[in-house]
Amino acid sequence: MYTPSDHDFMTMALAEAKKSMFVSNPNPRVGCVIVKNNEILGVGHTQVVGSDHAEINALKDAKAKGKDVTGATVYVTLEPCCHHGRTPPCTDSLIAAKVSTVIAAMTDPNPLVAGQGLETLRASGIEVRYGLLEKEAMELNLGFIKRMTRKKPWVRMKIAASLDGKTALHNGVSQWITSAEARHDGHLWRARACCILTGIGTVKEDDPQLNVRDVHPKDISVRQPMRILIDSFLEVPLNAKILDETIGGHTMVVCGQVDDAHFSKMETALKAKNVTLIKMADTSNSKGKVDLSALFTYLAEKCHVNEVHVEAGFKLNGSLLRENCVDELLIYMAPKLLGDAQGMANLPALTSLDGVDAWDMIDHQTIGHDLRLRLIKK
Amino acid sequence: MYTPSDHDFMTMALAEAKKSMFVSNPNPRVGCVIVKNNEILGVGHTQVVGSDHAEINALKDAKAKGKDVTGATVYVTLEPCCHHGRTPPCTDSLIAAKVSTVIAAMTDPNPLVAGQGLETLRASGIEVRYGLLEKEAMELNLGFIKRMTRKKPWVRMKIAASLDGKTALHNGVSQWITSAEARHDGHLWRARACCILTGIGTVKEDDPQLNVRDVHPKDISVRQPMRILIDSFLEVPLNAKILDETIGGHTMVVCGQVDDAHFSKMETALKAKNVTLIKMADTSNSKGKVDLSALFTYLAEKCHVNEVHVEAGFKLNGSLLRENCVDELLIYMAPKLLGDAQGMANLPALTSLDGVDAWDMIDHQTIGHDLRLRLIKK
Repeated sequence: MYTPSDHDFMTMALAEAKKSMFVSNPNPRVGCVIVKNNEILGVGHTQVVGSDHAEINALKDAKAKGKDVTGATVYVTLEPCCHHGRTPPCTDSLIAAKVSTVIAAMTDPNPLVAGQGLETLRASGIEVRYGLLEKEAMELNLGFIKRMTRKKPWVRMKIAASLDGKTALHNGVSQWITSAEARHDGHLWRARACCILTGIGTVKEDDPQLNVRDVHPKDISVRQPMRILIDSFLEVPLNAKILDETIGGHTMVVCGQVDDAHFSKMETALKAKNVTLIKMADTSNSKGKVDLSALFTYLAEKCHVNEVHVEAGFKLNGSLLRENCVDELLIYMAPKLLGDAQGMANLPALTSLDGVDAWDMIDHQTIGHDLRLRLIKK
Repeated sequence: MYTPSDHDFMTMALAEAKKSMFVSNPNPRVGCVIVKNNEILGVGHTQVVGSDHAEINALKDAKAKGKDVTGATVYVTLEPCCHHGRTPPCTDSLIAAKVSTVIAAMTDPNPLVAGQGLETLRASGIEVRYGLLEKEAMELNLGFIKRMTRKKPWVRMKIAASLDGKTALHNGVSQWITSAEARHDGHLWRARACCILTGIGTVKEDDPQLNVRDVHPKDISVRQPMRILIDSFLEVPLNAKILDETIGGHTMVVCGQVDDAHFSKMETALKAKNVTLIKMADTSNSKGKVDLSALFTYLAEKCHVNEVHVEAGFKLNGSLLRENCVDELLIYMAPKLLGDAQGMANLPALTSLDGVDAWDMIDHQTIGHDLRLRLIKK
């Protein structure tokens, strides 16, 4: 059905889409390549929210080069939109440009599009096909797809550990188990996320900035992801770096059941630092902790969060895993044995191996001296 | 200095040497290829102890094919021996065969040879070179090299663990954390070792057979490595599978400070089962446990053990690591999180990351659903 050329041009469109990785959130990462008689007329990718989508950028690119796209084939990594969102429908522009064929890697999981974009094009006489390199296209937008289809963000938990699964010494020392190369790679994963999430334990222990820094190219760090602090009982010190808006993205503190007086006092103090405070207590028990599942629904629906990057400690990691909130593990494993030290996550003792959660290892590669593993929940 | 053809022929010789992997212990794994005018005249590898070395097998192969090796080039992965061991010197045969050139991947670490083999050839007018693909040749014989140069065997510790470094549940369940593919691969590593070592804890908990089975090709399991049980206080149950000589290699039980009455009783019982018992107590303290370092010297010097394959539990793994007895970690990591469970090794809590032992990750690959890591002590 698809020719080797089709594969090549879609591969180029995917490479274009990757350029959106650090800029298009919460819009999906999309790339587009317009071709006629094996000549590439224009390429484009989705820019920051509110500006042009990939198809429009590719059409503009062709126009700027004085190319006529009439009768051309458009390779696009996601079905073109047909609704008025922050920008006009891309389908209108493609129809107006008189292209003859549109090949999409995947249909749009957005219920407002979901095949209607392709249908609109087809109704205008454009030949439409989809499914070419679909898996690769989906991988780029795991977060967008999950938000659109399940109203939850994709939650990626980053863990830096030793070979024997230890993340910190008992005296709290954890800097640096893994190498500078691994930490740099970790910043790239922070940079692609819509938000970076941590817990009060990590803030008390390490006081992290949770911003994107020391990345190449430098402009990746221009967009700083939102920072989210799970702080059930509002214990965050007001001088914590995560509350300093000058060194990172906007910060949201999420608390559980806190008495009104303390809540009011903290609300005032945090407002003065331009930090958002929301209460989201788990009412299913009396512990008064944050309802993590409700938080993720909130983040997806109200904040359009596609990917959450978790950098937390033993306790919050355990809560997130036990409550089935984690889609992906991103583990940096240093070639060291730490012995009696802090583990990855607070998970209960099992009595049988039958029921243990299984993960699919989708990637393993060395980063500096360390090994980076990516696993997806089965 | 070396031509592409030289590389190709030495690569073939290395492939030949790999055929010795499961048969030549405690002799080194050696391969040989004899070439004239780009024609391969004969190939060979070292066979079981007491039978022919690689060079002799290659010469015999050429002779059987009616080929004249006069003036040929001999590619051999280890310097030919020049001493009378269990077999006559290979140098004599090469000189008698009138080959013109010998290219060795590495010199023989055996102090009885150590360059003298090459010197003998050179003195007879044969052109001699060495060092081609040396690293690959050394990797095949890490154990032999260590025994010859440091009078200790190469100790490889196999660990099957979860992502979070857990090897068993608290109720003792550990079968099977990793997949059937990983277990099969583990048997190949058992098969290449001179002995398989475990501790009394593992015998009490799992009662393993510690033999080579279910391997392909089947003939790998013909040679069963010696089994060694570290049992400081002679607690082994007499019906333990490791004491059953019908299902595995010869067994040696090593004890520490045990009172004479118990020792005599156990000695008689073990002798009846054809099991060797040796006492090797650590006299540096009053704990009466086995002196592991002395044991390894004994294994190298008295038993000609090149590679020790360790399959032990938390305590013995910890002792071996703490006492710097381990050269290599062979870790099978299952894509699972086990949480509160048994760790890899009993190692003390550190107060700083500065002094932590570092390892070099030399290989990582998926075996079935699991990841296999190989690390060598830096």
